[in-house]
Amino acid sequence: MKLGEGVEASIHCAAMLAGVEGDATLSGAAMAEAFGVSPSYLLKHLNTLTSAGVLESLPGPAGGYRLARPAERISLLDIVLAVEGAQPAFRCGEIRQRGPVKLPASAYMKPCGINVAMLKAEKAYRAALAVEKLSDIVAGFQNDADPRAVAASCAFVARHQRLQKSSSPRYK
Amino acid sequence: MKLGEGVEASIHCAAMLAGVEGDATLSGAAMAEAFGVSPSYLLKHLNTLTSAGVLESLPGPAGGYRLARPAERISLLDIVLAVEGAQPAFRCGEIRQRGPVKLPASAYMKPCGINVAMLKAEKAYRAALAVEKLSDIVAGFQNDADPRAVAASCAFVARHQRLQKSSSPRYK
Repeated sequence: MKLGEGVEASIHCAAMLAGVEGDATLSGAAMAEAFGVSPSYLLKHLNTLTSAGVLESLPGPAGGYRLARPAERISLLDIVLAVEGAQPAFRCGEIRQRGPVKLPASAYMKPCGINVAMLKAEKAYRAALAVEKLSDIVAGFQNDADPRAVAASCAFVARHQRLQKSSSPRYK
Repeated sequence: MKLGEGVEASIHCAAMLAGVEGDATLSGAAMAEAFGVSPSYLLKHLNTLTSAGVLESLPGPAGGYRLARPAERISLLDIVLAVEGAQPAFRCGEIRQRGPVKLPASAYMKPCGINVAMLKAEKAYRAALAVEKLSDIVAGFQNDADPRAVAASCAFVARHQRLQKSSSPRYK
């Protein structure tokens, strides 16, 4: 089982965006610098998160990305599903129907028990990700991480955030 | 998040092997036929399952594969980890350390909270797979699947299983 690499960068970006002041934004280039990833690689994921309604993107000189809703209402599941797609990890190919004995489709009306069991585990995984809110991640970082790392991150955000001059309605 | 295709075939094969008589085996070719997959593709996974101690492989004319332990003691987790490897789905690349501000390694002694949260979800996933025993999958199939599908599967196993002439010690 494997999650794409984009998940790590996406969660880190969302957590960083939770730290901007008011309605400010951060550019994709700034976040790419913060995490040492290629800007084009990151933009792909930031745009996916924007399409999924996790982030919003503002155009113009003070443009960039910001959270589309409060960090309390963004879960790790929202981010993982946005980046990885909503399909379950186990893709049932219905190979039970492919054998040499051709039974009518009516013999396979009930779902395959293997798929049912695998989807049950997927449900447990998603439930565990759904309770992990971005706000908890940020609070955990602020409370538990090394103070030097917290200070460096705050300083980076303060230096790179783009405050909005004109009124740009935000969720808060 | 994605599991390899081999997981479906591997679980189906293990479930089919739970249905052989006594110490009989099934060949990889027979199981490939049963699920309409390429024999070479399937052999790769059967050998992986054998290396992982889920199956055992017998040489010779009556050779083939059989379960290495009772179906009650094989979980879906055993099979998924055998096929996919033990690495968690989320691979933390420690991108938190890659930014422009170079802090000493001592600033990152505590694990990244994002990785901790992702591993917590992985633990929930694995726990859910660990309670799903192969014996439950087989019992579910026998009790709930369409009787025509059950009969076809039993007939296939009866026709293809290779009974052992000489004593070939097995777990039961």
